[in-house]
Amino acid sequence: MALLLHSTPERREIWSRVFAEESEPFFATEGDVTDPALVTHLACWMPPKDLTRYPNLSVVIGVGAGTDHLPPLPEGVALSRTVAPGIEGMVRDWVVLAVLALHRDLPLYLDQAARGEWTVHKTLLARSRRVGIMGMGRIGTLVAQTLGALGFGVLGWSRSARPVNGVRTFGSDDLDAFLSQSDILVGLLPLTDDTRGLLNDRLFAQLPQGARLVQAGRGPQLDMDALRRALDSGQLAAAMLDVTDPEPLPGDHWAWADPRVIVTPHIASLTDAEEGAHHALAVIRAGREGAPLPGLVDRERGY
Amino acid sequence: MALLLHSTPERREIWSRVFAEESEPFFATEGDVTDPALVTHLACWMPPKDLTRYPNLSVVIGVGAGTDHLPPLPEGVALSRTVAPGIEGMVRDWVVLAVLALHRDLPLYLDQAARGEWTVHKTLLARSRRVGIMGMGRIGTLVAQTLGALGFGVLGWSRSARPVNGVRTFGSDDLDAFLSQSDILVGLLPLTDDTRGLLNDRLFAQLPQGARLVQAGRGPQLDMDALRRALDSGQLAAAMLDVTDPEPLPGDHWAWADPRVIVTPHIASLTDAEEGAHHALAVIRAGREGAPLPGLVDRERGY
Repeated sequence: MALLLHSTPERREIWSRVFAEESEPFFATEGDVTDPALVTHLACWMPPKDLTRYPNLSVVIGVGAGTDHLPPLPEGVALSRTVAPGIEGMVRDWVVLAVLALHRDLPLYLDQAARGEWTVHKTLLARSRRVGIMGMGRIGTLVAQTLGALGFGVLGWSRSARPVNGVRTFGSDDLDAFLSQSDILVGLLPLTDDTRGLLNDRLFAQLPQGARLVQAGRGPQLDMDALRRALDSGQLAAAMLDVTDPEPLPGDHWAWADPRVIVTPHIASLTDAEEGAHHALAVIRAGREGAPLPGLVDRERGY
Repeated sequence: MALLLHSTPERREIWSRVFAEESEPFFATEGDVTDPALVTHLACWMPPKDLTRYPNLSVVIGVGAGTDHLPPLPEGVALSRTVAPGIEGMVRDWVVLAVLALHRDLPLYLDQAARGEWTVHKTLLARSRRVGIMGMGRIGTLVAQTLGALGFGVLGWSRSARPVNGVRTFGSDDLDAFLSQSDILVGLLPLTDDTRGLLNDRLFAQLPQGARLVQAGRGPQLDMDALRRALDSGQLAAAMLDVTDPEPLPGDHWAWADPRVIVTPHIASLTDAEEGAHHALAVIRAGREGAPLPGLVDRERGY
């Protein structure tokens, strides 16, 4: 058995080193594969076109936290998404940055700075703002803990309404109550049929007036035109987006130039190559020992 | 005995309510003072010109965390600076925002956004960056704890080198060692003769190349021309400033337009009026009970 990596030259170098250090069989590119029957694991963002070349392929390892972009895999092939403290911490950092930026009116101050204007606006204490987190998986829980420690009121919404210490949790049936109390709404949901287009006019109308939006889920969840309408009506005051629809955002898109919106180019999580390689090793070893695969994705559920 | 407030109409309203609720004698403006001999406490940002009008004045309460802007007070008049969890939390929030913004290359991404450019750059994990905090008082300690919890390596520098859990602390003699390990330098010092002009060419040269600067101390500590030189030479990669020299920063100052610099108009801490009034009440009560005055400033030391 061996792992085939399908990635960039930069990552190839790091993975080659990690796999050599651990003496695990490894092909750095498809061109290096001596015998396709040896390939049992494939690590990639997007897989190569023809997976039928590898008759013994048993696991595809997605190198990111999301796997919604992947095509259907051959029958019997499991999918693992990279679970790594680095990715989780990076998304948490970006979300905390975004929440603080909107809490402290950074878009307004950046707009003033562009005009050389020194004007102070009133500000609220963190404890006077409630942050509603949509998606309370591992990353959402980390975000909730950090924001709670900063003094924000924290609400969490997830399908399972799993209780989290210090967080008021809401389930599927309580979306209205959750939204009506979210002064800053944080999108951290996976992309599924249920979440596609979820951030739309109807949802924005349920937020407190002047609410702020942080979106670090997936681009197709957000109706960008609805966002613009909500900003224009004053229903939303500002937004910070790491994912957009489409991606990349075209150079002439209104959101780039709108002073109420900060867009970053899908950088909240970039898998650290070293961590990604170690996740792949953990998957290989779990398979060998008959243990549950780390990061195993339920493809029906979508995450 | 009574407190005289010298402040804005907005704050006046809130203080009047708080003092009425607590039945403490209160003059909302100098014009309201019926008998100057009643005034024992004065709360203000800048005091009125003639304090000799109030023969029984015993304490001046500065409504901000800093008091370096105050003129000398009459002999025997104590000075208290407002100590309030709200102020400390607000400065902490701004500093954490600034550290995350520089850690995650926000100035670079904002500059790209202004051109509608979607380009991803490499990023480091928080644990690969060391944040050096100059000034380890109550706010510096809070900042250190929050950044430590986010995974950053945290170093602290203060005159006393007082040990803080999880922080490598350095004292006056160890400034060089502290600076050489500070990938992100955070200025949180009070303004004293020792700290005026401290952030200059010599200091920047001791930081690791490509370091980043967060300044939330006092404007006159930072040599703005030296900052520009350090940015131009690549010694510093970016900076986020809440205080500048001069303040307000003139509309045509280079720093407003420089994509490597984010300037906010001295907003890290705005005293919450309610908290400020409660601090003043605590000072009045401590005096009455002969207890140590909260926030008492050592005017020799300067903080």
